[in-house]
Amino acid sequence: MAGNSFGTIFKLTTFGESHGVAIGGVIDGCPAGLTLDFDAIQHEMDRRKPGQSDIVTQRKEPDTVEFLSGIFEGQTTGTSIGFIIKNANQKSKDYSHIKDVYRPSHADYTYDQKYGVRDYRGGGRSSARETACRVVAGAIAKQLLKSVKINAFTSSVGKININKPYQDLDFSKIDANAVRCPDEAIANKMIARIKEIRKEGDTIGGTVTCVLQNVPVGLGEPVFDRLHAELGKAMLSINAVKGFEYGSGFCGVEMKGSEHNDIFNADGSTKTNLSGGIQGGISNGEDIYFRVAFKPVATIMQKQETIDVDGNTLQMQGKGRHDPCVVPRAVPIVEAMAALVLADYYLLNKITKL
Amino acid sequence: MAGNSFGTIFKLTTFGESHGVAIGGVIDGCPAGLTLDFDAIQHEMDRRKPGQSDIVTQRKEPDTVEFLSGIFEGQTTGTSIGFIIKNANQKSKDYSHIKDVYRPSHADYTYDQKYGVRDYRGGGRSSARETACRVVAGAIAKQLLKSVKINAFTSSVGKININKPYQDLDFSKIDANAVRCPDEAIANKMIARIKEIRKEGDTIGGTVTCVLQNVPVGLGEPVFDRLHAELGKAMLSINAVKGFEYGSGFCGVEMKGSEHNDIFNADGSTKTNLSGGIQGGISNGEDIYFRVAFKPVATIMQKQETIDVDGNTLQMQGKGRHDPCVVPRAVPIVEAMAALVLADYYLLNKITKL
Amino acid sequence: MAGNSFGTIFKLTTFGESHGVAIGGVIDGCPAGLTLDFDAIQHEMDRRKPGQSDIVTQRKEPDTVEFLSGIFEGQTTGTSIGFIIKNANQKSKDYSHIKDVYRPSHADYTYDQKYGVRDYRGGGRSSARETACRVVAGAIAKQLLKSVKINAFTSSVGKININKPYQDLDFSKIDANAVRCPDEAIANKMIARIKEIRKEGDTIGGTVTCVLQNVPVGLGEPVFDRLHAELGKAMLSINAVKGFEYGSGFCGVEMKGSEHNDIFNADGSTKTNLSGGIQGGISNGEDIYFRVAFKPVATIMQKQETIDVDGNTLQMQGKGRHDPCVVPRAVPIVEAMAALVLADYYLLNKITKL
Amino acid sequence: MAGNSFGTIFKLTTFGESHGVAIGGVIDGCPAGLTLDFDAIQHEMDRRKPGQSDIVTQRKEPDTVEFLSGIFEGQTTGTSIGFIIKNANQKSKDYSHIKDVYRPSHADYTYDQKYGVRDYRGGGRSSARETACRVVAGAIAKQLLKSVKINAFTSSVGKININKPYQDLDFSKIDANAVRCPDEAIANKMIARIKEIRKEGDTIGGTVTCVLQNVPVGLGEPVFDRLHAELGKAMLSINAVKGFEYGSGFCGVEMKGSEHNDIFNADGSTKTNLSGGIQGGISNGEDIYFRVAFKPVATIMQKQETIDVDGNTLQMQGKGRHDPCVVPRAVPIVEAMAALVLADYYLLNKITKL
Repeated sequence: MAGNSFGTIFKLTTFGESHGVAIGGVIDGCPAGLTLDFDAIQHEMDRRKPGQSDIVTQRKEPDTVEFLSGIFEGQTTGTSIGFIIKNANQKSKDYSHIKDVYRPSHADYTYDQKYGVRDYRGGGRSSARETACRVVAGAIAKQLLKSVKINAFTSSVGKININKPYQDLDFSKIDANAVRCPDEAIANKMIARIKEIRKEGDTIGGTVTCVLQNVPVGLGEPVFDRLHAELGKAMLSINAVKGFEYGSGFCGVEMKGSEHNDIFNADGSTKTNLSGGIQGGISNGEDIYFRVAFKPVATIMQKQETIDVDGNTLQMQGKGRHDPCVVPRAVPIVEAMAALVLADYYLLNKITKL
Repeated sequence: MAGNSFGTIFKLTTFGESHGVAIGGVIDGCPAGLTLDFDAIQHEMDRRKPGQSDIVTQRKEPDTVEFLSGIFEGQTTGTSIGFIIKNANQKSKDYSHIKDVYRPSHADYTYDQKYGVRDYRGGGRSSARETACRVVAGAIAKQLLKSVKINAFTSSVGKININKPYQDLDFSKIDANAVRCPDEAIANKMIARIKEIRKEGDTIGGTVTCVLQNVPVGLGEPVFDRLHAELGKAMLSINAVKGFEYGSGFCGVEMKGSEHNDIFNADGSTKTNLSGGIQGGISNGEDIYFRVAFKPVATIMQKQETIDVDGNTLQMQGKGRHDPCVVPRAVPIVEAMAALVLADYYLLNKITKL
Repeated sequence: MAGNSFGTIFKLTTFGESHGVAIGGVIDGCPAGLTLDFDAIQHEMDRRKPGQSDIVTQRKEPDTVEFLSGIFEGQTTGTSIGFIIKNANQKSKDYSHIKDVYRPSHADYTYDQKYGVRDYRGGGRSSARETACRVVAGAIAKQLLKSVKINAFTSSVGKININKPYQDLDFSKIDANAVRCPDEAIANKMIARIKEIRKEGDTIGGTVTCVLQNVPVGLGEPVFDRLHAELGKAMLSINAVKGFEYGSGFCGVEMKGSEHNDIFNADGSTKTNLSGGIQGGISNGEDIYFRVAFKPVATIMQKQETIDVDGNTLQMQGKGRHDPCVVPRAVPIVEAMAALVLADYYLLNKITKL
Repeated sequence: MAGNSFGTIFKLTTFGESHGVAIGGVIDGCPAGLTLDFDAIQHEMDRRKPGQSDIVTQRKEPDTVEFLSGIFEGQTTGTSIGFIIKNANQKSKDYSHIKDVYRPSHADYTYDQKYGVRDYRGGGRSSARETACRVVAGAIAKQLLKSVKINAFTSSVGKININKPYQDLDFSKIDANAVRCPDEAIANKMIARIKEIRKEGDTIGGTVTCVLQNVPVGLGEPVFDRLHAELGKAMLSINAVKGFEYGSGFCGVEMKGSEHNDIFNADGSTKTNLSGGIQGGISNGEDIYFRVAFKPVATIMQKQETIDVDGNTLQMQGKGRHDPCVVPRAVPIVEAMAALVLADYYLLNKITKL
């Protein structure tokens, strides 16, 4: 293990630096016989790619995935699925200004300390560029999970919150605006806030809420691999994530048991769902919902003090085209990681009992 | 995989139901040559065990660990360490009242749906009793990590919050009171609140904050196995946990990049630590701190409506001796899980570079 | 990983030294709902245990397995199955004569070099005693694989060979004699040879042949985890094994393709079976057969030159009661390991295609 | 798991079909700071590639590896190393003659049964083409293991045997002839035999012997992951392999313990080496040597009876350019797999003791 694989049965292994020739990955364990919808895969890629709207980075990366194996005549064959995504213009950039500099709150310092060597071009492996590979695999996982509905959306940007239960939202409106918030009025405020922040040369954090519906009962592998533990790990493995909560989450700690318990209906469904669709680490058939916290992007267009590799203090300022708020583009990544977890547990659950 | 193992190199596999003969586990990958302090291990067990104070369950379980292998003349031999903890009085209890009943917000329903069979006695495998095995392994991991300081404490009970940065607390006072909150005034309020809740036959949630100090730079395995992702999974795998945040956490989402970035000192340390000691998924030598949300225990001493396995509605009420608030006993479990993650990554990090 | 686990889904983790309190293990991933035949499990234990006949070691070890979890009212629950086997008389023996001595062709020297510390009592972890745990798990795997027939037998002792195709043997006679050779005439010669060897204070090697019948088509996970690759690893992990071949094996190398190819019948079965029931790493429904080579046991009752930990030359001679030929007791171990491999691949194969 | 990964720490995951766009893989866990010799990597590729001599297949595949990540300025960075090898002319071939036909002793039938779908072009995933990826990773592993000497050679073709202990051979002569046998006289006989066989439109098997020298003491992870067990699995996972033996191997079974035991010298080395450099599953510093059996290639240029997917009997004959004997090209694959096992265990062994 060196950290580049995710999953046990439906397993993704990725590689690639932001400015290498290509990034890519291998999906092992996808069952044979799945007819792939390649447009749907590319659609997910397009939701993540730079340059898709005026509130995200204006870098140009077409992010076209090329499948190299594991698919024959449009169908998965049960063998490993290799794919690459070429990096656009990977040679043209000048990175000499960050070669010997540790950018604050980036991974430059820790990579250097851990590995003694670092591909400094655009953040190398620590760049969020690698999440494109997650989206490819997640898009296939979604197709495996056909009946499960996976919807993530931007629930806050800075202090602007959606402040509505997800049940009152129309998920079909998520992609109707650039910030991916299904409440139009709030979305407009968020967009305005992001533009304001960008003008300041600054960045801002936010949250993504994700809702998983029609999840079969029984997914999850106690005791360590509880469904929400693996979902949490999946989300925390995304760049810039600082927190994860599901169901009642951090609010639940203030409640009493008599308020928090979800009383059953006769059919095993529950009248409330503070459990967030998971009990004892296993899905119970209710909606699974969780919230993911993203910090503000570390690269800002303002002067900051920092140090170089020799410990000299200096001033630096971000160059190039960066996201003022990572959250809109994080929405498809959150969905992809949720799909990967569910696909893995869906397969595992088929062999849990005789 | 069926969920009962944790870790890659320093790996714990556990077994056991709350009312079987014994629970236990196997620790594989502990380096040879570690002289164990058995009193220290038992001390951690005592911090978790029932009956230790008047605000926790009054069940009597001595929780003595018996090591069966992997240790010779007080030293680890590099072979797998097997251990058991006998269950006290496991035969005497009467569980007929829950045999065919699904307790609200417990794992009864989901286990039955997933496995088609269930050891209903005291929650079986879904009982938090299994966490005793985690404490055994965590206590050994702590000894491996000698210089690392791992301190968890109760930071809130219901709405009573410690409201102080951890730097202002004296960790040596954590065990000075029954609730494991190092601020005595707040601790007294928490204890009073728990007693009040118990009198109502109800339960209450809370949070545990954990601080890891003197962690070597370089721990963490990007991209999926980021240090905080594995810590998050570790915490979310503990019974009753609903959320995890580290560093600036959910508060960080409201900040701007210019506020959130941690500016370096010349020696690579940082002036602030909103990153929470981890950058790019790798420890940077600063304090790692995180917060874990525990929901109120599901078993309450009040009448609740529920259903039986045939879908009949009925009234039920908890019996026996249960925790009104799980948080004080969760403190050593949080520490144990943190130690397991660190030990695993500490070993892995030794072979990361030439 | 430190080597004490076997399998991916149906996974065994073991612990224990030959002269510790107990050996044992955890079986994770056994599906729920399997009604166990405990007598059948003990029967396999009895086939492996010391003292069962006059040609094996006369040590007294009842080898009774105690299950501690994962089984409720006689049925597996889908949770991890913990078990222990107590070591008889583990405290009484005197091992001072081997404490500082490296026995030739034992693991004393390599364990000391690798770990820097060693439980020298009876070989510690390197003793074949740990295989008792494999037999427990294998016996459960056999019950999961109900319709598959697993038969191993002694096919040679020293130069005495069975020299018949397995098809001409009556597997019901395997346990009819102490050496576990289903050909009575050959068995008698083998037994005589072993007694002769024992009288000399020497030991002798042999082979075990194993035949797996009614194996479902489709087991095996190419490319690295081919069915025969995993069977080979399983066998080579047993103490004293020096070689593994399946199907045509080492003889097959002398053949031409036109002789070696197995021609199909119309139903997909084959007219010959030099492939040994596996093609491309996947079972094809024909009988799987393989042969395992066991070296002579290293402990002999003759004087040998050896060295102590300080490099001094000395004379030593085996003490106690050891097997003059390990093969008869290895038969149930070979079967157990084969069952573990098949059970794991049987479960995996259920999720290979949609 | 679906079988396309090998190793625990130094881990290779591969993908690719013989006639897809490209094959490739990901190496995870290679330590940072290794300066790669790319010529040496390509040299190993050239030793495996088709068309290298007149006794192997005359297909034209340049087999140039392209590294996509994990390497910066010639050095490994500790991040995952992605690579691809483009397939030459992958679109031009006509495979309609095998589309609906099951070739005898190939994997056509078992893949179809297992997966329900099959990339029939050139054997798809079951083709030995995937071993090119193993050679890439193995070549890097060799560079990590700098001081270890890994030499494999052809020890038999059909009934022509080298019949000399490896100590009497000059390994520098292995690549001096097309069959990779360091004994020139025997090599000539082997070459003549292969040409004869090719003229018959037939194929022939053979063995590869491999010797690992200067292996550090201590490699191997008992009890299941013994060094020779993993070596055995590695070899058995190579196409066409039917058997594996190490040290005294199958011959050892006929010996007595008094003959077989390796007596120590004062320095811990041994006077003989029937153990094959491994005791108790752990390397002891002596030469490790093993032998691998390869069956004759299944594709022959003679008419054979076979069936189609509907069970109809028909006659078929191999087309194209195939190897009459796979052994000469298998030599670098055996070395590569040995290097992968050693590299993995070499890294693991660094964290075995304090």
